[in-house]
Amino acid sequence: MARTDRVKLTDIARAAGVSAPTVSKVLNGRAEVAPETRDRVQEVLRAHNYQRRPSGKQPKAGLVDLVIKELATPWSVEIIRGAEDACREAGIGLVVSAVHSDRVDAQRWLDNLAGRHSDGVLLAVSNLDRAERERLDALGVPLVLIDPIGDPDANIPSIGSTNWAGGLAATEHLVGLGHRRIAMIAGLPNLLCTQARLGGYRAALERAGITPEPELLRFGDHFPPSGQAAALELLDLADPPTAIFAGTDLQAFGAYKALQSRGVRIPDDISVVGFDDLAACDWVTPPLTTVQQRLVDMARMAVQVIIDGGTEPGEPSRIELATSLTIRDSTAPPPAAR
Amino acid sequence: MARTDRVKLTDIARAAGVSAPTVSKVLNGRAEVAPETRDRVQEVLRAHNYQRRPSGKQPKAGLVDLVIKELATPWSVEIIRGAEDACREAGIGLVVSAVHSDRVDAQRWLDNLAGRHSDGVLLAVSNLDRAERERLDALGVPLVLIDPIGDPDANIPSIGSTNWAGGLAATEHLVGLGHRRIAMIAGLPNLLCTQARLGGYRAALERAGITPEPELLRFGDHFPPSGQAAALELLDLADPPTAIFAGTDLQAFGAYKALQSRGVRIPDDISVVGFDDLAACDWVTPPLTTVQQRLVDMARMAVQVIIDGGTEPGEPSRIELATSLTIRDSTAPPPAAR
Repeated sequence: MARTDRVKLTDIARAAGVSAPTVSKVLNGRAEVAPETRDRVQEVLRAHNYQRRPSGKQPKAGLVDLVIKELATPWSVEIIRGAEDACREAGIGLVVSAVHSDRVDAQRWLDNLAGRHSDGVLLAVSNLDRAERERLDALGVPLVLIDPIGDPDANIPSIGSTNWAGGLAATEHLVGLGHRRIAMIAGLPNLLCTQARLGGYRAALERAGITPEPELLRFGDHFPPSGQAAALELLDLADPPTAIFAGTDLQAFGAYKALQSRGVRIPDDISVVGFDDLAACDWVTPPLTTVQQRLVDMARMAVQVIIDGGTEPGEPSRIELATSLTIRDSTAPPPAAR
Repeated sequence: MARTDRVKLTDIARAAGVSAPTVSKVLNGRAEVAPETRDRVQEVLRAHNYQRRPSGKQPKAGLVDLVIKELATPWSVEIIRGAEDACREAGIGLVVSAVHSDRVDAQRWLDNLAGRHSDGVLLAVSNLDRAERERLDALGVPLVLIDPIGDPDANIPSIGSTNWAGGLAATEHLVGLGHRRIAMIAGLPNLLCTQARLGGYRAALERAGITPEPELLRFGDHFPPSGQAAALELLDLADPPTAIFAGTDLQAFGAYKALQSRGVRIPDDISVVGFDDLAACDWVTPPLTTVQQRLVDMARMAVQVIIDGGTEPGEPSRIELATSLTIRDSTAPPPAAR
């Protein structure tokens, strides 16, 4: 539908059968509007292509919100560091929030956000449900996704990594060393990054003429215990793998624990490759070969998209930063090949 | 000097021999006032005990600033997590900033802070110079120090750890296992936390009738390479230690690398104890025995002090949270004792 110029708030109110203050409440993302009323108003706003925020007119708050699902990981440090760096350079404050699975958190955060008029929101490996997304839309606050999960809305700019290429590089490195029985401990199956890394793993196997075997594929949740449990299962196979590609460094650290508890030597008996290149890769024994993600740059770039006022409609909105393989001491030829 | 009620801005201006707008600029922490003018105005403000911020009158911005010197460490994740948690509960946004040694960063941050009228500032293992501190004072923004460095101003509330007791517990654990040649790889010598941990180490040795030997004491900078270098020096001694107490977990991870590079087994040949209890203690091989700091609680409590409006003059302003020893697999009796 073509943009209707100068639609007034009162027109929206009339069309939705509510008062103008109610429309205003919906626009301001206030919580005290009944869900069905909010839905109706949102629908009318969309139908009229109502644009609340005349660009460049509203004073900048000088704040950008970064929302991270899980703060307690080395992964989040990298994201915060990149975002903080870009914000500081631009003279903007970075507001950091954690939104756990708990919906109350998300509501509270949206309430606070409405109060402080943030200039933009960065959502890192996290998602909002439909109602939350609409409330954010109503606030007119630009949104950028960092390392998007699920199936990201094509209209929302997102910055990710070349997860497929990373999975391919990790697996080709193992193939190149002579491995044929290569297992993968993947992340959460519903995440886009998991699917892409898994796709790269499968493609590398197929390029080498190796048929991917279902028993060599395990799923976890990105944290060490899931990597440990999956590695123990792999070791219990009649024909265990000679190499493991873990979907995250933390899962690789968990796999280390499993292998060491069974007296399996890394890389002499089994090679391990991770994904992320956290600082801790250098502290574990042996130092972990891994796929480096440019997490700091991803966050920096996301802030830049906000500062630039988002991408224009029709512009390509999905950016993927290149990954690269960092080879350390956890990979070697398989025992049989030596 | 007794509080002079109702001193007016114009009185201050007259006494300082400047215009009222200049006093206002100093009060607002603006940068464009000449340093000597600023000093003179500050002095007059102090002499008149001028209170700019009638408590509870100014609207709350709903923001708390957290300033961390170094964002790229697992230590900062814990601090951010605690502060974010407390802020979220209170419906406040947490603005995270990194201030490196670079003074330009600090200036830029103060400029931004003046613009957004933060409700309080948490300064984590970081410090401001005198001019910066005065600018902050002028803004009337309450300040709380987390894990203060150097010699903290007694008038500023601070939340730290019982570093002395932690150093004592770590060393007594090693003494209890039968170690006599116990080395310490301490942090930066000018930091209060380093001095306290070192004091606890020395006290434990003395209680056990062991004379602290200068050659067994090394200093570093809290990061792995400094722990690695110090551990190599210790291994090169004519009579190397049988145990190492590292001032931080990261230094202990560095010591691990040094010991492993020389084929020294942990804990069979040398025991290692860290300080912090980062998540990574569980990922390294062997898992690290360490002193747990309640970093998350420290940050939570610091936010609470801001929310409560700071401590009253005369109230005890320094709080230390108890540390505890977490015993894992990196400590054992010395070889001779087995």
